[in-house]
Amino acid sequence: MTRSAAAADLFRFSATAHCPRTQARCGVFHTPHGSIETPRFMPVGTLGTVKGVTPAQLAATGAQMVLANTYHLHLQPGEAIVAEAGGLHRFMGWDGPLLTDSGGFQVFSLGDINVISDEGVVFRSPRDGSRINLTPERSMQIQMALGADVAMAFDQCPPYPASENDVAEACRRTHAWLERCVASHDRHDQALFGIVQGGTFPHLREQAARTVSAMDLPGIAIGGVSVGEPVESMHQIVRQLAPLLPRDRPRYLMGVGSLREMAIAVAQGIDLFDCVLPTRLGRHGTALVGGERWNLRNARFRHDHSPLDSSCACAACTGHSRAYLHHLFRSGELLGRILLSLHNLTQLMRFSAAMATAIREGCFAEDFTPWEPGSQAAHTW
Amino acid sequence: MTRSAAAADLFRFSATAHCPRTQARCGVFHTPHGSIETPRFMPVGTLGTVKGVTPAQLAATGAQMVLANTYHLHLQPGEAIVAEAGGLHRFMGWDGPLLTDSGGFQVFSLGDINVISDEGVVFRSPRDGSRINLTPERSMQIQMALGADVAMAFDQCPPYPASENDVAEACRRTHAWLERCVASHDRHDQALFGIVQGGTFPHLREQAARTVSAMDLPGIAIGGVSVGEPVESMHQIVRQLAPLLPRDRPRYLMGVGSLREMAIAVAQGIDLFDCVLPTRLGRHGTALVGGERWNLRNARFRHDHSPLDSSCACAACTGHSRAYLHHLFRSGELLGRILLSLHNLTQLMRFSAAMATAIREGCFAEDFTPWEPGSQAAHTW
Repeated sequence: MTRSAAAADLFRFSATAHCPRTQARCGVFHTPHGSIETPRFMPVGTLGTVKGVTPAQLAATGAQMVLANTYHLHLQPGEAIVAEAGGLHRFMGWDGPLLTDSGGFQVFSLGDINVISDEGVVFRSPRDGSRINLTPERSMQIQMALGADVAMAFDQCPPYPASENDVAEACRRTHAWLERCVASHDRHDQALFGIVQGGTFPHLREQAARTVSAMDLPGIAIGGVSVGEPVESMHQIVRQLAPLLPRDRPRYLMGVGSLREMAIAVAQGIDLFDCVLPTRLGRHGTALVGGERWNLRNARFRHDHSPLDSSCACAACTGHSRAYLHHLFRSGELLGRILLSLHNLTQLMRFSAAMATAIREGCFAEDFTPWEPGSQAAHTW
Repeated sequence: MTRSAAAADLFRFSATAHCPRTQARCGVFHTPHGSIETPRFMPVGTLGTVKGVTPAQLAATGAQMVLANTYHLHLQPGEAIVAEAGGLHRFMGWDGPLLTDSGGFQVFSLGDINVISDEGVVFRSPRDGSRINLTPERSMQIQMALGADVAMAFDQCPPYPASENDVAEACRRTHAWLERCVASHDRHDQALFGIVQGGTFPHLREQAARTVSAMDLPGIAIGGVSVGEPVESMHQIVRQLAPLLPRDRPRYLMGVGSLREMAIAVAQGIDLFDCVLPTRLGRHGTALVGGERWNLRNARFRHDHSPLDSSCACAACTGHSRAYLHHLFRSGELLGRILLSLHNLTQLMRFSAAMATAIREGCFAEDFTPWEPGSQAAHTW
C-alpha cells in the first residue's frame, strides 16, 4: 500500500448524502481519534484550550474536531513539552479529533517578519524577541511533534488587497512549500491537508486548486478568505473552487464561522469550518440567537427572566435567564464569558447538525438557501 | 407552634456523631433546599456566581451550601430583579442551600461611609456615588427579597485593632440591631442567624455569646475574626465561645477557610465555614495540594506531566497535568483560573468530608489534631 493509500484508509471521507438541488453533502471524516460528521464547525483552541471551556463542556456543545495553533503552541509551551506529555490530545485533555494549522497564517498576520524567502520566514518572537525560522520542514516537525490528527501545509497567505504579482508569487511559493511539506511529513497517523491560495484572482485560484488537488492529499482547504475581502468575493471563490476539488476528500473553508457564510458555502460543497468569532463574541457579551447577534449587556435584558434561547440545550439556556447573563456581564463576572462561549459553540454545532439533517432529508435547499438571519429559513433549525 | 419552633423544625440541626477526645461533631443541618452535612466549607458566590464556576461544576466539587453577598447584590443587579426572577436560587441556577450575609461586613470594610449611628449606616454607592441607607430592617428586607435559606443579622464589625470602648459600643449596637432584625424578619422559609462580635476582648465576647444565644435563633455565627488579628487570637476566641453557644444549633465561623484553621476550629465544635481564599488563590495560580500551596506558575512545573493531585477526582486532576496547568497560567488562559478554582473547592469539600468521616470513626483527634500542612495527619485524608 502506498503512503497516500495508507493515509486514505486511516483518514477516509465518505459522503453519506447529497442535496438534490445544491452541491451540499453530508459525510463522515474518519481520524485516529474518532469521526467527524460533516458539515461541521470546528472550535478554535489556539493555545491548546478553547478559552474558558473545559474539555467536558466542549464535548457537551457537540464539538467533534478542535483546532489548535502551531504558531502559538510553538512559542508557548513549545512543541517539545507537548510531545513529552504524549502529544496534544493528552496535553490538553481532548481525546477527540484535533487539527493544527501550520503557523503560516499567524506568522504573516501577527509576526514581526524579518525575512521572507523561498526558504521560509524569519520572524521575531513576540515573547522574547528571539529570531525564529519557520520553514515548511520546521512547520511539519512542529506539527508532527504536536501530533494532531490533521496537520496543515505551511503556506503564504498574502494580505488583502494584494497585487496580482504578489499573489502569484505567494502561490508559486506556497506550491513549492507544499511539495516540501509532503516530502518532510512522515507521520502516518496524521493527515496532511493542502491549502488553496490565490487571493481574489480566479485564474490563480484555479491553478492553485489544480496544483493542490494533484497532490492527492487526504483533505484540502481553501485559505486566504475572510481576510478582509468583500464577503461576496469569498463566496465567488468558493463557488469557483469547490467543483475543482476532489469529491472524495473533505473540503475545509478556513476562518469562516458565521451562520450565513457557512450555509452558503455548504451549498457549494464545503464540509469543514473554523473561526474564533463565536467564542470571541461570547466573551464580549454577544450571543447568537435565532441567527441574530444579541448584546447581553443591553438594558433591555435587565428584567428579562426568560431563557436566552428556549430551543437550546446548552448550560446557559437550560440553567439561566437573560437577566442573569446581563447581570454577569454588567458585573464583569467570568461566568458570563464562559456561558456565552458555550452557548455560541452549541449554536454552531446545532446549525451544523441541522444542515446535515436537512441534506439527508432533502430539504437543505428549501431551509438553508437563501439563508438570512431572521428569515423563515433561519427559524427552521 | 411558635415562630421559633416553626423555624427550628424547618431548619433542624442534628449532631450525628461526636469525637470522644475533642469537641468536634458531625451533623446535618436541614434547609428548605436540602441538607448540609457538617463540618462543611461553604464556597462564596459574591455576586450570585462562584467566579468562573457553573452550578453543575460547583455541585461536582461537593459543595452543599453556597454564600452570596447582600451588599454586592443590592448594588448589582438589585434585590428587586432577583425577587422578580423568583429568588436567588432561580436567579443564579443553584437549587441547593444558600446563605446571604447581611452586608454589614462589606459596608464596614468596603464602603465609603458617611454616617454610622444607632439607626444604621449611610454610605456612598461605589457604582454611582448615590447615598445608600442600610439599617437592620433594610438588610432584612433585602435578604428576604433575595430569599436564601439563611439570612445573617446586620452587625457592626469593628476593624482590628480597635479600642475596648469602640468594640463595646459596636457590640451594644450589634445587639440592638439583632433585636430589630428579629422583629423585622418574617420570612418563615428563611432562617436568621445571629452573629457574635466582641473583638479580642474575652468579656465582650462572652457577653455577646450569651446575648445572641438567648435569642433562640436557628444558628449562630462567630464574626469579627480573620480581620487581621493573630491567628492564635482567633483560635482563643473560638475555644472560649464554642462551649457558650447552643449545642443544638449550627455554629458558623465566618471568613475562615484554610485547612489548619478549619481543623482547629472543628475540634472546638465549629460546624460551618466560608472564605473567598480558595477560589481567589485558584484564580491567581495557587493550588492547594496535600495541605500545601503550590504556585503553578513556577518553572518547576514546566515539564511535570503528572496529575496535580493523584488522589483528587476534580476536573483539573483527572483531565490535566501540572505542565498543562503551568502552560495555562503562563499563557494567561481563563481555563487555568477555572480549573484551579474547581480544584481548590474540591479540596476543601474533601477535607470537610474527611473530618466528618474521622469524627464518625473516632479518629478525628489522631488524624486532625495537631493538623499542620505537610504533617503525617495532613496526608491521612
